[in-house]
Amino acid sequence: MGTRPDQRSVDPAAAAMLKISDREGFDTAWSRLEAQQPQCGYGQLGTCCRNCSMGPCRIDPLEEGPRRGVCGANADTMVARNLARMAAAGASAHSDHGRKVALLLKDVASGRNTDYTIFNPDKLMVVAARLGIATEGRETLEVAGDVADVAIACFGAQGEETIPFSTSYMPEKRLELLKDLEGTLAEMTGARIGLMPRGIDREVVDIMHRTHFGCDADPLSLVAQSLRCSLGDGWGGSLIATECQDILFGTPTVRTIKANLGVLDTDMVNLVVHGHEPVLSEKVLEWARSPEMTEAARAVGAKGVNVVGLCCTGNELLMRQGVNVAGNLLHSELAIMTGAVEAMVVDVQCIFPSLADLSSCFHTRFITTSEQTNIPGALHIQFEEHDANAIARRIVQTAIDAFPGRNAAKVYIPQETEEAMVGFSVEQILAALGGTPDPLVEVIANGTIKGVVGIVGCNNAKVQQDFFHLSLTRELIKRDILVLGTGCWAIAAAKAGLMNLDAQQQAGPGLKAVCEQLGIPPVLHMGSCVDCSRMLVLTGALADHLGVDTAALPVVGSAPEWTTEKAVAIGSYFVGSGLPVHLWPVPPILGSPVVTKILTESAKDLLGGYFFVEEDPVATADRMEAIIMEKRVGLGLEKEATCNS
Amino acid sequence: MGTRPDQRSVDPAAAAMLKISDREGFDTAWSRLEAQQPQCGYGQLGTCCRNCSMGPCRIDPLEEGPRRGVCGANADTMVARNLARMAAAGASAHSDHGRKVALLLKDVASGRNTDYTIFNPDKLMVVAARLGIATEGRETLEVAGDVADVAIACFGAQGEETIPFSTSYMPEKRLELLKDLEGTLAEMTGARIGLMPRGIDREVVDIMHRTHFGCDADPLSLVAQSLRCSLGDGWGGSLIATECQDILFGTPTVRTIKANLGVLDTDMVNLVVHGHEPVLSEKVLEWARSPEMTEAARAVGAKGVNVVGLCCTGNELLMRQGVNVAGNLLHSELAIMTGAVEAMVVDVQCIFPSLADLSSCFHTRFITTSEQTNIPGALHIQFEEHDANAIARRIVQTAIDAFPGRNAAKVYIPQETEEAMVGFSVEQILAALGGTPDPLVEVIANGTIKGVVGIVGCNNAKVQQDFFHLSLTRELIKRDILVLGTGCWAIAAAKAGLMNLDAQQQAGPGLKAVCEQLGIPPVLHMGSCVDCSRMLVLTGALADHLGVDTAALPVVGSAPEWTTEKAVAIGSYFVGSGLPVHLWPVPPILGSPVVTKILTESAKDLLGGYFFVEEDPVATADRMEAIIMEKRVGLGLEKEATCNS
Repeated sequence: MGTRPDQRSVDPAAAAMLKISDREGFDTAWSRLEAQQPQCGYGQLGTCCRNCSMGPCRIDPLEEGPRRGVCGANADTMVARNLARMAAAGASAHSDHGRKVALLLKDVASGRNTDYTIFNPDKLMVVAARLGIATEGRETLEVAGDVADVAIACFGAQGEETIPFSTSYMPEKRLELLKDLEGTLAEMTGARIGLMPRGIDREVVDIMHRTHFGCDADPLSLVAQSLRCSLGDGWGGSLIATECQDILFGTPTVRTIKANLGVLDTDMVNLVVHGHEPVLSEKVLEWARSPEMTEAARAVGAKGVNVVGLCCTGNELLMRQGVNVAGNLLHSELAIMTGAVEAMVVDVQCIFPSLADLSSCFHTRFITTSEQTNIPGALHIQFEEHDANAIARRIVQTAIDAFPGRNAAKVYIPQETEEAMVGFSVEQILAALGGTPDPLVEVIANGTIKGVVGIVGCNNAKVQQDFFHLSLTRELIKRDILVLGTGCWAIAAAKAGLMNLDAQQQAGPGLKAVCEQLGIPPVLHMGSCVDCSRMLVLTGALADHLGVDTAALPVVGSAPEWTTEKAVAIGSYFVGSGLPVHLWPVPPILGSPVVTKILTESAKDLLGGYFFVEEDPVATADRMEAIIMEKRVGLGLEKEATCNS
Repeated sequence: MGTRPDQRSVDPAAAAMLKISDREGFDTAWSRLEAQQPQCGYGQLGTCCRNCSMGPCRIDPLEEGPRRGVCGANADTMVARNLARMAAAGASAHSDHGRKVALLLKDVASGRNTDYTIFNPDKLMVVAARLGIATEGRETLEVAGDVADVAIACFGAQGEETIPFSTSYMPEKRLELLKDLEGTLAEMTGARIGLMPRGIDREVVDIMHRTHFGCDADPLSLVAQSLRCSLGDGWGGSLIATECQDILFGTPTVRTIKANLGVLDTDMVNLVVHGHEPVLSEKVLEWARSPEMTEAARAVGAKGVNVVGLCCTGNELLMRQGVNVAGNLLHSELAIMTGAVEAMVVDVQCIFPSLADLSSCFHTRFITTSEQTNIPGALHIQFEEHDANAIARRIVQTAIDAFPGRNAAKVYIPQETEEAMVGFSVEQILAALGGTPDPLVEVIANGTIKGVVGIVGCNNAKVQQDFFHLSLTRELIKRDILVLGTGCWAIAAAKAGLMNLDAQQQAGPGLKAVCEQLGIPPVLHMGSCVDCSRMLVLTGALADHLGVDTAALPVVGSAPEWTTEKAVAIGSYFVGSGLPVHLWPVPPILGSPVVTKILTESAKDLLGGYFFVEEDPVATADRMEAIIMEKRVGLGLEKEATCNS
C-alpha cells in the first residue's frame, strides 16, 4: 500500500490491523481501491450511460467532444437518470427490509409464526393510533394484524393516493407544502410531477421505467421522481422497518455498550453478526446466550459465546440488547484478520464479497443467510423466519464447532474499546426530556443549544476512515450544536468515545450544561441506517410541536464518508423533508451543472431542503452553523444582524 | 459521416433521407454514434460497476490488472448485477405499461371513466374464464372489474405465491418444471433461489436490492432473479398489457396496411404517433378521423388529418385499426426530416430526446404527453385518461394549427411503401387454422414446416438498419421455417414487403404451400414489443395441445439489432419459458465467462431455454435450423440420423 495505516484510518485499532494486513499481504478495500486507480472520470461525473446497447455513451464536460449520447441524451439527462437509479436501488434495499419485518409481524399476529412474539405492545398501540387503527379494548394480536396489513399494503399500493404511513407520520406543514408544490410544478412545467409517495415498490418501478431508453430526459422531473421514491423510503419502507422492529423486538432504551475490535474476546467463541437486520441476529443472540450453547462452548474450551455486532446489524443489537459492536463497514475485513472470529454471520447489504476469501485464510466460518445475498465461497445457511430458532441454533453451533480450529499464533485483537451510551430512540429522547419536546425547544429557543445536526454516512475507502465523522462531530458539539445520528457514523462516534459522558467536556458550554443536566452524551446514537426514519420522526415532532414546517427548524443533515446508494435515498428524503443535507465525497452529479443546480439551489427554493458538498469538516461545520443561524433568524430566535454581521 | 447512407440502412427510404441529413448536417443516431467512438470497452464487456461511491470500478478481463472492485466484487458479480438491472428496467417499462391499462380497465368497469368502453366483451370473457373468474350470467362491467382487480393485484402482491396471471397462462409442464427447478436449485446451492414470479413490482425491487452494494455476489442467483423478474414481465406485466388492451380496444384481426415513410401524405396534416401505448393514440386516431377535425384540417388547406404510426405505438394502431406505419425506431428522426410532419406525439419508451431539437428545425410540433417522459424542448400536453377526449382533440388541433407553417421547400417524402398483411393475434392465427392448432401441428409434424422462429429486436445504429432482421427472416422462410414476431422487427419486415402475399414466393416449398392454402404471408405480424406475450401464449398453447414442455417444441426466439433493456427482459422470459434465444449485438456479458456459461450452457441444462450470440444472419439461420431439427428429433418427428448426418 502506498499510504500508511494511520493515513487510511484515524481509528488506532484499524491502524494496528492494517499493519498486520500490510505485513501478511491481505487484500482490503484500501488495497483494492489503490489497484483500481485511476478510476473512471465519466463515472465519477455521472456522464456515463449504459442504459441501452447503442451505448455505452459518455460525455466529457471538460473537453471538446460529443455533447450527446447516441439517443440524444445530454449530460443533464445522463446524470439525472443515473442518480435516480441510485435512489431507486437505495429505496429498494430499505423497502425489502421493511417488507420482511411487516410480513413477519403479520405472521406473528396471525399465529402462523410462533418463533417470534410481540415484545412491545405499547409501541404497537401508539403506531396503531397514529395510523387511525382502533385499539380500545382490542387484543394485541388483532391490532398487530391490522398494523401489519396497513404496512404491507403500503408496499403494493397501486393507486395515485399517498400511502397511509406517509400521511400519518409526515408533519402537517410538510404534507401541505409537498401537495402544494405538486400544483406549482404542474403550473411551471405543464407536466404532472408528483412528490407524495404512492406504493413504495411502484415508485422504484417508476424510476426504472422512466430511466429506460427513450423515456424521461428532463432533469427536473427525474430529480423529482428520485425525491418521491426516496420519500417513499423515508416515510415508508424505512419507517415501517423501524416501527415494526420496535413492536417485535422492543423500542431502544438507553444503555451502555463497548465499541471497537477490543470487544472480541480471546477466551470466547466470537460470533460476529454483520449486515442490517435484527430478525436473524436477535435469534442468534438469544441462542448464543442460552445455557445449552454456553455449555456447548465450554465443551470446546471456550468460556461461552460472545456475540458482537458489525455495521447496522450491530446497531440494531446494541440499541435493543446492549450488544457490543466491533466496528463499522471498514472494520468488517479487519475483524476477520484478528484471527479470533469463529463465525461472521451476515444478512443483507454492505457485505464485502471479499469476506469469503479472507475468511478462508483463517478458521472463520463466513455464513450467508439471505436468499438475496449469496456470496461464492461462503457457507450458506438459508434463514427462514418460520424456522428461526432451529436455524439460529445451528448457526451458533457452527461457530462453536469452529473454535477448536482457531490458530493462537494468528490471533491479534487490538485492545481499543470505548464505552458508549446508546439507545436514543425518539421515545427515549422524549423520556429524557420529561415526556415532551418542550425542554429541547426551550434550550434551542434560548440559544443554549443552537441547533441539531443529524448524521448518517458510511465508511468509504476513498477517505480516511472515520476522520470526517469525528472531526465534524467534534467541531459541531464544540459550537453547542447537538449531534445525533445512525449507521456507520454512530459506530465511529462510539469507537471514538464521543458517546460517553466524558464527551460532555468536548461540548460547548451550552450543550455541555444541557447534557450534564439530562445525564446524556452530546452525541446521540439513534440506531441503524434504516433508523434515519427516527430522525425524520423527531424532526417532524419538533415541527408539529412548534407549528412550523421542518424547513424552518435549525436542523441540518449530513452523510459523510458515504458509500451506498441507500445514502442517496436517505439524503434525498431528508432534502424532500425540508432539510439541508451535506455530502462528502461528491456524488456523481458534477457532469451536469443543471442537475447540480437543481439539487443545490432550486431545491432550496422549492422544498426548503437542498444538498451541499464540502470536503473539509471545519468548513462543513461553519456552513452548518451558518444555516442553523439563518434558520434561527427565520424563527425569530436571533436578530437578523447577528447573522449578517 | 464516415459511412454511406446505404451502409447505415438497407431501407432505401432511410438511405434517401440520410443523404438529405448528411447534406443539411442534421444530427442523427448514426452521427452521434460515430462521435461517441471509441465506446467504453468495460461497459461493453459488463465489467464496469457504479453501484457505490467507492467506485466506479472496472475489470479488464483481457489485461493484467485488478480482478476485483473495491468491495471485492469480481467480473462475474459485476456482469451479473449489471445484467439484472437491465432486466429490472425492461420489466419495469412493461410493468408500468400493463398497470396503466389494468387501472384504466378498472376505471371503465366502475364507471369512473366514460371516455373509454369495453370494446371486446368476448375477449373479456375468455380472459376471465382463464383466470377462474365466474362469467355465467354476469354483466360485462362486473366481470371487467374482477379481471382488472386480479390484474392490478398482480403488480402489488406481497406474498411468496406466484401471481395468478402466471399460473393461469403458463403452460402446464413449464409450470411444473419451474417449480421443480426451484427445489433442484435449493438442493444444489443450499439457498432459496426462486423462479416463479411473485408480485411484478416486487421482483424489480428485489433486483435493485440484491444488486445494491454488499448484497448478492453470486452470478447464479443473480441470473436466476433476472429470469424470475423477467418471467413476471412476460407472464405478468406484458401479458396484462396485451390482454387488457385487447379487451378495451379489440383483439387484432387480419388487415392490410402500408409501411414506410411514403405513408406520409403531402396533402394532409401528418400526425405521427410514436412510443408504445394505444391508450392515447387510439383517442388521437378517433379525433383525427372525426368530421370536426377533418373540417378543421380543410380550413387550413389540408385534405384531412393523416395519422401514421412509428415504433410500437404504430404497431398497436396498425394491428387494431389498420393505421399505416411510417417506420421503426431509426425512422423516428428521418420522419421529422421529411419536413411534412405537423406533429409527432409521443407517449413512453424509445423516444430519442434528440427529436425535440430536430423538430425545432422544422414546423413540427414535438408533443410529449406522459408524466414519465418529459423532454426539454418539447411541447408537453399532459395526457390524463379521465379527460382523454378533450386532450386528444387538443393534440389533433395542435397538429392542424401547425400545417400552415409547413415549408414546401423543405419537404421531401421518399415514396417507398410496401403493403403488409398484419393483425396476427393468437386468436387470428387460430381462426386462420380453423379454430384449433391441429393444422399447424400437422404441418410441423409432417415436416411441411420445420418449425417456428419468433423475432422481436429493435433498431440499433451500431448495425445496418433492418439488415439482420430481413436477412435472417428471408433465410428462415426459405428453409420452411415460419417466422412471426413483433416490435421493430415486424415493421422492418412490413417495410420490406415480407408481410404481403407476394412474399410467399420467397418461402420454401412447404411453407409456401401452407401460406398459399391459408392465404397468409410467411412472416406474421403479432404486434408491439409488449405483445411478445402473444408469442408466449401461442407457444404455450402448442405445448399444452401436444402435452409437452415448451422446451420440446421446434421454436426459437431472436432479438436482432436489439437496443433496449426491454429486450433483455423479453429475451430472459423466453429463455425462462424454455426457448433458445438468439441475440445480436452481443450483450454486455463477455467480461464474465461464468455468466456467459450460465446463460448459454447451464440455462440449457436447467431450463431448456438459453441464449446464443451470432453476428451473421445466415449462420444464425443455420444454428436455428439445427436447433429446430434437434427438437424435431426429440419429438420423434425426425430420425436421429438425419440430425447427426
